[in-house]
Amino acid sequence: MKISLPPQTVLLPSPVLIIGTYCPDGKPNIMNAAWGGIASSKPPCISVSLREATLTFHNIMQTESFTVNFPSEKYFKEADLAGMISGREHDKFKLTNLTPEKSKLVNAPVVKEFPYALECKLVQHINLGMHTMFIGEIIGIAANEEILNSKQVPDIEKVRPIFWGSFGSSAYYNVGEKLGDAFAVGKELLPE
Amino acid sequence: MKISLPPQTVLLPSPVLIIGTYCPDGKPNIMNAAWGGIASSKPPCISVSLREATLTFHNIMQTESFTVNFPSEKYFKEADLAGMISGREHDKFKLTNLTPEKSKLVNAPVVKEFPYALECKLVQHINLGMHTMFIGEIIGIAANEEILNSKQVPDIEKVRPIFWGSFGSSAYYNVGEKLGDAFAVGKELLPE
Repeated sequence: MKISLPPQTVLLPSPVLIIGTYCPDGKPNIMNAAWGGIASSKPPCISVSLREATLTFHNIMQTESFTVNFPSEKYFKEADLAGMISGREHDKFKLTNLTPEKSKLVNAPVVKEFPYALECKLVQHINLGMHTMFIGEIIGIAANEEILNSKQVPDIEKVRPIFWGSFGSSAYYNVGEKLGDAFAVGKELLPE
Repeated sequence: MKISLPPQTVLLPSPVLIIGTYCPDGKPNIMNAAWGGIASSKPPCISVSLREATLTFHNIMQTESFTVNFPSEKYFKEADLAGMISGREHDKFKLTNLTPEKSKLVNAPVVKEFPYALECKLVQHINLGMHTMFIGEIIGIAANEEILNSKQVPDIEKVRPIFWGSFGSSAYYNVGEKLGDAFAVGKELLPE
């Protein structure tokens, strides 16, 4: 019998989404967001939920653009710092020694050192209470060539992404072992 | 210099969300969804995007309830099967040998063998094209006691969740090593 716990936002694992935006004065900024996920396949959309207190919230409202950058495991400290301080008081690119490159498709910066970024145009935003959900259409992907597989798609074993254990597991983890192929291993459970 | 790729929904890692619902005739069903994430902290909400073609879409529309169950790594084949076949033709609980238990809080089943489930009430649904995003308020959590930490919260190292590498990495993976504590390791990059 399961026991009942109070409601909490325990999603295991939670992604580490580094949101790139431009400030009104053109300064590039990054923040670390965990509340988000793919929202739709056609059109390809991603959602990211942000508090109104963040600089990124206001940057997206103004530019209607953002990037979602995925750090590889060697950048877990840089990712963490991007979630601890505000771009209002700090230049997070300088502090982390990361390099902003303007996206070719949207009005937002891409993190050069990270393996790939989704380039997004704001489609809608929905106020849900403490957080506002921003839904962005993925217009393109900016990727480092060495993390692609033979089909020219980012490969998880080359990207080596990190993720976050929310609530009570508040740490960064890397990818472990491959267990089996999706849309395939389940067949073993079907009767002959 | 990064290269440009066509837009695709590459989120690494993507969660494995096993959505529990009741059919109109009371039969419990599960499906495997990857498009979703936490949407808001207060109220605590999660989003899950589903195609209208799925049975789960219609079950949630009718019951306005669902659970989000997190399989531990030993259940990766069961999770995969739940994403390969439809509850319209198959009893997925029977085929996977998993056990439905009625949630104490919402009108949806919880998977007994999985470590924990978020119990959700539908708040709103938003048609985004191929997918409709369902936003559910997390009313409570049903958890197996042995996966909790000392603060009575699900612990990632006890849950041993799985995740999915979307697009070009279409396989299940488990959790690797802990890299460092969140909201902590970033400080090492700050000037003295």
